[in-house]
Amino acid sequence: MAHTRAAILGGSGYTAVELVKILLRHPAAELVVVTSRDRQPLSAVHPSLLGRTDLVMEPFDPDRLVNQGVQVAFGALPHGASREAVKPLLERGIRVIDLSADYRLKDAAEYERWYGEPHGDPVNLARAVYGLPELFADEVRAATLVANPGCYPQPAILGLAPLLIHDRIEPTGIIVNSVSGVSGAGRTPKLATLFPECNESVSAYNVGVHRHQPEMEQVLTRVAGRPVELLFAPHLVPMDRGIHATIYATPTRPADAADLTALYREFYKDAPFVRVRDTFPATKDTAHTNFLDLTVRVVRGRVVVLAAEDNLVRGASGVAVQNMNLMFGHPETAGLG
Amino acid sequence: MAHTRAAILGGSGYTAVELVKILLRHPAAELVVVTSRDRQPLSAVHPSLLGRTDLVMEPFDPDRLVNQGVQVAFGALPHGASREAVKPLLERGIRVIDLSADYRLKDAAEYERWYGEPHGDPVNLARAVYGLPELFADEVRAATLVANPGCYPQPAILGLAPLLIHDRIEPTGIIVNSVSGVSGAGRTPKLATLFPECNESVSAYNVGVHRHQPEMEQVLTRVAGRPVELLFAPHLVPMDRGIHATIYATPTRPADAADLTALYREFYKDAPFVRVRDTFPATKDTAHTNFLDLTVRVVRGRVVVLAAEDNLVRGASGVAVQNMNLMFGHPETAGLG
Amino acid sequence: MAHTRAAILGGSGYTAVELVKILLRHPAAELVVVTSRDRQPLSAVHPSLLGRTDLVMEPFDPDRLVNQGVQVAFGALPHGASREAVKPLLERGIRVIDLSADYRLKDAAEYERWYGEPHGDPVNLARAVYGLPELFADEVRAATLVANPGCYPQPAILGLAPLLIHDRIEPTGIIVNSVSGVSGAGRTPKLATLFPECNESVSAYNVGVHRHQPEMEQVLTRVAGRPVELLFAPHLVPMDRGIHATIYATPTRPADAADLTALYREFYKDAPFVRVRDTFPATKDTAHTNFLDLTVRVVRGRVVVLAAEDNLVRGASGVAVQNMNLMFGHPETAGLG
Amino acid sequence: MAHTRAAILGGSGYTAVELVKILLRHPAAELVVVTSRDRQPLSAVHPSLLGRTDLVMEPFDPDRLVNQGVQVAFGALPHGASREAVKPLLERGIRVIDLSADYRLKDAAEYERWYGEPHGDPVNLARAVYGLPELFADEVRAATLVANPGCYPQPAILGLAPLLIHDRIEPTGIIVNSVSGVSGAGRTPKLATLFPECNESVSAYNVGVHRHQPEMEQVLTRVAGRPVELLFAPHLVPMDRGIHATIYATPTRPADAADLTALYREFYKDAPFVRVRDTFPATKDTAHTNFLDLTVRVVRGRVVVLAAEDNLVRGASGVAVQNMNLMFGHPETAGLG
Repeated sequence: MAHTRAAILGGSGYTAVELVKILLRHPAAELVVVTSRDRQPLSAVHPSLLGRTDLVMEPFDPDRLVNQGVQVAFGALPHGASREAVKPLLERGIRVIDLSADYRLKDAAEYERWYGEPHGDPVNLARAVYGLPELFADEVRAATLVANPGCYPQPAILGLAPLLIHDRIEPTGIIVNSVSGVSGAGRTPKLATLFPECNESVSAYNVGVHRHQPEMEQVLTRVAGRPVELLFAPHLVPMDRGIHATIYATPTRPADAADLTALYREFYKDAPFVRVRDTFPATKDTAHTNFLDLTVRVVRGRVVVLAAEDNLVRGASGVAVQNMNLMFGHPETAGLG
Repeated sequence: MAHTRAAILGGSGYTAVELVKILLRHPAAELVVVTSRDRQPLSAVHPSLLGRTDLVMEPFDPDRLVNQGVQVAFGALPHGASREAVKPLLERGIRVIDLSADYRLKDAAEYERWYGEPHGDPVNLARAVYGLPELFADEVRAATLVANPGCYPQPAILGLAPLLIHDRIEPTGIIVNSVSGVSGAGRTPKLATLFPECNESVSAYNVGVHRHQPEMEQVLTRVAGRPVELLFAPHLVPMDRGIHATIYATPTRPADAADLTALYREFYKDAPFVRVRDTFPATKDTAHTNFLDLTVRVVRGRVVVLAAEDNLVRGASGVAVQNMNLMFGHPETAGLG
Repeated sequence: MAHTRAAILGGSGYTAVELVKILLRHPAAELVVVTSRDRQPLSAVHPSLLGRTDLVMEPFDPDRLVNQGVQVAFGALPHGASREAVKPLLERGIRVIDLSADYRLKDAAEYERWYGEPHGDPVNLARAVYGLPELFADEVRAATLVANPGCYPQPAILGLAPLLIHDRIEPTGIIVNSVSGVSGAGRTPKLATLFPECNESVSAYNVGVHRHQPEMEQVLTRVAGRPVELLFAPHLVPMDRGIHATIYATPTRPADAADLTALYREFYKDAPFVRVRDTFPATKDTAHTNFLDLTVRVVRGRVVVLAAEDNLVRGASGVAVQNMNLMFGHPETAGLG
Repeated sequence: MAHTRAAILGGSGYTAVELVKILLRHPAAELVVVTSRDRQPLSAVHPSLLGRTDLVMEPFDPDRLVNQGVQVAFGALPHGASREAVKPLLERGIRVIDLSADYRLKDAAEYERWYGEPHGDPVNLARAVYGLPELFADEVRAATLVANPGCYPQPAILGLAPLLIHDRIEPTGIIVNSVSGVSGAGRTPKLATLFPECNESVSAYNVGVHRHQPEMEQVLTRVAGRPVELLFAPHLVPMDRGIHATIYATPTRPADAADLTALYREFYKDAPFVRVRDTFPATKDTAHTNFLDLTVRVVRGRVVVLAAEDNLVRGASGVAVQNMNLMFGHPETAGLG
């Protein structure tokens, strides 16, 4: 199998270094370029890469990527900046898996409402595919532009999709209560994510107004075939990585956990990275893997779904590589074992 | 003001050492006895107490407590064991503030259902007062036996009481999603609370079936004057101390956050330990204090209440001393500043 | 006893908020001013102070401090900036306890060598007293300007002083291997102290070239009466607060732990905050207190001293208040219990 | 290349699960048996293995291992117990890599002194090879019994060997100051490793009397060709995994860091897992890898070597697989990338 030649746009953050590590051990991919404003060795910015790669980052130059035979570029830039890089790459025939939020909301007006600026690239927005392989594998395979899903939306979407598709819960009044490790807030120094501020502490933020809320609703509305409405409440907890979601929904008819668990098992029987469990998922069980663990309970007249993932792997770079695998005909699990 | 002479029953756990620290700096209390099966210095079991107290723990002997002039005993024993100690003390005229769960559920049948054994002391159960000073100060002042509230119930009860009393939310369908630091699980070595198991991890447990759920419902039903029904979902997060509750309820009529915040401010205007905030509470802001922080939001048609406390101080030993202050005529905040 | 009226210069950092908390519960001190470039409530910058103080920070104005009757100012400014504030206060008769490094090194040339700039205030440098009460209480009592000791130097100095004074160890070849919690690095956002960078990690920094090394040597040389030379190696560990020092020295003659422990006990018998222990000190035992715990061992021909403290209390704000207590005739432990 | 068929003896601990994960992704090994007293699925004991393996643990039976074609067994049992299993396996021609301490100290009397019981298997002790591939690769290749090195000794030995072999430091008076994450203490619940005990705390233990001290001395004495004497001081720090060693030695002649760094680079030029760095190593850079990072400094007349590793991978299971690779002719890095 020919190796897929890959680039990463923006090499300084946590999702970038995670991508690098996955691609370096991928049996069918080769990382040939990582871009950055500054020319410096990747391992100078990420000492964990010492001895693993000699790549020197270089400024973004779409023609040079073409010359280097790059077939796919992973966008690890902030939203807005990402869009600027995506356009010239698509024009040159390089497929893009964009880890920013730029192409996730299909409606440009919705984008503007949540991100406070016009979208700026509606043409490509229209052709972007939402890169959640468990639901949209066929579209991903054919995509030239994949909008890689957000970290918080994945447990919510994969946790709710089977119930909505099978009409087992009401599509409104859903609550998604999530907690995230601090790496989800990025690598730019900020007071809120300074160690002595967030260690030994838990707090909520952006309750009901987080940008991942419309992303969840858009995708779930599509799979449910009717308007899904939910309230999303994110929290920060003192750990490096991991997202845990506790999801509350109202059953459409009497339900029991065994029955719903069977439904999940059937729904995800071909999904190599979704683990339907009987025990409560712990984020630690998924750390450094592309697994997303799911458990369902019925208590006090509610369906409660519990889900856990690694926010940097499954929530970002791992699922991005899973998307690449589909796009280039590699086994879905390649490099992610 | 005469000093109140206090004893602690069971000196080996986290709530006990927290009680010792508070009582040692209390201006109007004196800790005269700490009981334990083993005779050993308190500071041998809790090295943080070195140089602060020379107390040597001694086996429980109710007559000796009388001889030592003990006026109040804090029960820091496991449920069941606590009950055995409470009876002889009350008979001897020593008032008891029991930090175990033994006297919290007023209905002995309900106790048996949740704790799996007959209550065994229905007489004292009938006279026990639920020790939440913000709601029941008058009863606490007169009590001979106080059932100190559980750690999880306090943010839930104090977060919901104003809304229920003023009929601003529906009494059913409430969700209490809480996370707790690991000290809440006690000091007995267990696999689940071993550092490498729970560090860098979040997971739920006992969703919908935790013993604090009926405690919340019982107290809220009483203050609301009608049946309150809720679903309680506790989670463990990797920090020493702190509980954060995110509470979801359905408004009875259109609501906005400013209006509800004003209602909370009015409700708690004389409560020295409840801080109604505009910003999201963080457990760290309450660490090592008796404060309970509250914020209210209205989003997506829901009222969301966010609350934080230190589970060992406010959630156990601090509120116990607050109860003692009321019972013995000390300023409510004495020793808790 | 008349209350001592105190000011804090620079209210935004971790030592400042710790000072505020100690002074608020001090029975004989009153915090009347906290300065800052921005006029804003202290509790807006430190939400843990909500409900505890209504102080609004104000720009530094030495005349206004005089008008407010301030008797002592705690300098919590960065080095350099601190010096600028100290001079006008001393001129106006306000005593200063400076928590910066500006007045610790007695030799202005040494200061310039380690801090890369001329000292700028040699007159006051000459009269500054090194504020380590266990060694220099008499000087502190009479001081108008106290150079509050660094966080790392205290365990090293108090751990070594008895041995050097009694000629039990060689004054050279000493190794001080220390680890610190992250709050020691301050509250300014930096990549190195971002949660996902330093959590789950240990690393050394400034080995043999840290500015606290000459501070340790200067003070120990003075108490030993002969040149003391040591190598100091600091490390960062993933916790909020706490410093642990493991100190290695060569005995001048055969020694055993029991004998040396007795020597420490005698040396510190009147020091209320030094706890000589038989067991290994843990930083947690000293957390949120002004205690400094010490243990001594003799193994493999070396004397090994182990010491622990809370870097924000004992290592900065607690010892500063201990100094204030001495300067103003309060009990040494006032406010620090 | 034929797959190597492997067994793990004792599947419940942290090194066992780490071994399982490495072997599952090893391109040339197959894990065929994991033993345990209880017959239960591996993933029931380690939920992180859900979906990765269906192996059910089974009681130890050497004949059954032979029947299953096991070629190599990894001993992950406590010392003592390990020895009992090793003997019958060697008799049946199964090669053993023992992760316990049973075969590390070559002198049975020394073993008895440090472990408090007679060795019990001096015959196999005599033929055991110390499995540190960077120093003893040829012996490892030919070994039937490998004593896998301890977690603490590796940074100390690999950090000191080049200097001792090249006579750049004195062989006595060496200090090894190490800190370890809590997983190093094992998975058996104990008070000392309960989360609320060791979180937010650092303390030393077994200073100068830890069992890894003679292991370090024995191996370094052998490579140096003269008696090496050192003082080892281990500490526990609040993180899951990682060991950091700060090593102090006296140079035999004037030295500088650049010169010594060059010596290390030359010494380890063929060692794929030793990274000689200019910057201070951080344990996080080595987490979940088999790398051991080294930096050398010369300060205040001392040579200071700083080393970091992941205690579960490099310090145990990773180096064990590195040994297996050498023993069975696989590339040294197979499965460890």
